[in-house]
Amino acid sequence: MEIAIGPEAIEEAAQRIAPYAHITPVLRCATLDRIVGGSLLFKCENFQKGGAFKFRGACNAVMQLSEEERRRGVITHSSGNHAQALALAGRLLGIPVCVVMPTTAPHVKRAATEGYGARVVSCEPTLAAREEAVEREVAAHGYVLVHPYDDWRVIAGQGTAAWELVDQVGPVDAIVTPCGGGGLLAGSALAASRKAPGAEVIGVEPSQADDGRRSLAAGTIVPSGDPRTVADGLRTSLGERPFAVIRRHVSRIATATEAEIIDALQLVWERMKLVIEPSCAVPLAAILNGQIEVSGRRVGVILSGGNVDLGEFFAALRCRWVG
Amino acid sequence: MEIAIGPEAIEEAAQRIAPYAHITPVLRCATLDRIVGGSLLFKCENFQKGGAFKFRGACNAVMQLSEEERRRGVITHSSGNHAQALALAGRLLGIPVCVVMPTTAPHVKRAATEGYGARVVSCEPTLAAREEAVEREVAAHGYVLVHPYDDWRVIAGQGTAAWELVDQVGPVDAIVTPCGGGGLLAGSALAASRKAPGAEVIGVEPSQADDGRRSLAAGTIVPSGDPRTVADGLRTSLGERPFAVIRRHVSRIATATEAEIIDALQLVWERMKLVIEPSCAVPLAAILNGQIEVSGRRVGVILSGGNVDLGEFFAALRCRWVG
Repeated sequence: MEIAIGPEAIEEAAQRIAPYAHITPVLRCATLDRIVGGSLLFKCENFQKGGAFKFRGACNAVMQLSEEERRRGVITHSSGNHAQALALAGRLLGIPVCVVMPTTAPHVKRAATEGYGARVVSCEPTLAAREEAVEREVAAHGYVLVHPYDDWRVIAGQGTAAWELVDQVGPVDAIVTPCGGGGLLAGSALAASRKAPGAEVIGVEPSQADDGRRSLAAGTIVPSGDPRTVADGLRTSLGERPFAVIRRHVSRIATATEAEIIDALQLVWERMKLVIEPSCAVPLAAILNGQIEVSGRRVGVILSGGNVDLGEFFAALRCRWVG
Repeated sequence: MEIAIGPEAIEEAAQRIAPYAHITPVLRCATLDRIVGGSLLFKCENFQKGGAFKFRGACNAVMQLSEEERRRGVITHSSGNHAQALALAGRLLGIPVCVVMPTTAPHVKRAATEGYGARVVSCEPTLAAREEAVEREVAAHGYVLVHPYDDWRVIAGQGTAAWELVDQVGPVDAIVTPCGGGGLLAGSALAASRKAPGAEVIGVEPSQADDGRRSLAAGTIVPSGDPRTVADGLRTSLGERPFAVIRRHVSRIATATEAEIIDALQLVWERMKLVIEPSCAVPLAAILNGQIEVSGRRVGVILSGGNVDLGEFFAALRCRWVG
């Protein structure tokens, strides 16, 4: 697969989405810096619209549709942050959005997507059923597919987080992101190739879903089956377009175990007071387990999102305190 | 009780603690602004050192000790944020700290206080036992008592959060803070009297612990017994010094029920992606229940702290995902 975009696509995306996306803050934590002996610069995409970096890619894709495509509207299949991001981008730009979601998707995700004004179509939780549902809806309504990660416009949009991070904090020695489908990692690598040319760009996966690491080693995409990991956003396998970029621009892919991911998650909640989702803790987990050396270095960490289902936690609190 | 400090004490405190305290960010939330029809400016003291605004007061108090007092060290009785704040201030300034804590205090709070280098002395969970333990320790070691809120230096320190907020966001129509012992509310009111002279300053209490509201109405302190509320930081009753300021400078005290507090807590966690403690959600709860009118106004809200025990939550997550 040829790489169809360069770093200028990230810069253009940053300008394009600027009227809609938040410039998210970069936060630091003295305790964590002390633990690792370096400077961690956390780019807080959990504060992004829709609660995750995904809004950047969705917004950048939707804004490049032709007038005629805008009228037809867009479709995607996702039960995660991309669905909400696309729904939100569609609402802001007045474009119809359809999301195909498995019947097994958490109720809160469905409600949030509908809350942003999207039409949600249910399907059985299989790849075949999902693809069939998308085809049927496209045939009936003429929707344009916006893939969660295997789309150059989406990749360029995701890269704007790293681009903005370097604008905010100056030179960095490395940029670390989670890696699921690879859109964020690929976009960050393209951004760094212009904005932070000497910096290492490192992806991190759950050890249970290390298809990216195995794909890089094999030189071809080796998908994960149906990996079991708390990092629900990273269960998907690399897309072809992200993989083409990652092979060329990414130094390596590190991993973290489930226990390490949950330890890192707890540290960020308790010490940084940030609600982040499990997928988002994976880069810090690989810093803390020693796979990514940060001693004496300035390292940008993309905190990818904060959409986590807290229903049970608050139900328990209500049960205890509300009579 | 005469009011011994004016707004200049807040300004001096702000300069005094500047080398040690964080300038915490002010965050906004488009969703919440839409819900209330106004502009809410959240001063994020959950990001303050020690995880709460309490560090400001503790630091300001400790920095005004004489050389001889510094050598003797300081003592307080608290199982909450003031204990950790004083311990941290003592560590940063090289001053011994002793904290008297009831045997019923959560293990995490004791561990955190010891983690900051303080000496923790246990006592039975009664007022008599606590006072006796403090007296005994003072007699033995000569410690100087730093009260959690009934101390002018502490009140002045707490006021620096509101002072800083106005520096950061410009004019506001109102400032809302939680009210427990009253240090934060009194300090904020003194700060506003200089920095935001037209602004209303409003305190908020749990309906179950509304001694401040009742005290204002009665013109004298009417303490709560042992109120049962999820907002553990607000179970204490008003101190004399804070009350003197509050009578004179605070417009009124609003209240929120347990259900309203938990609803507001959940909104901040889920929408703003901020870990805050229940006490910290009380002001927003009174905005959402309509007791504080914010429509078309710019309202500063002090998010007081983010120290919450997440042990059970993460234990459940580990139980599910770590084999």
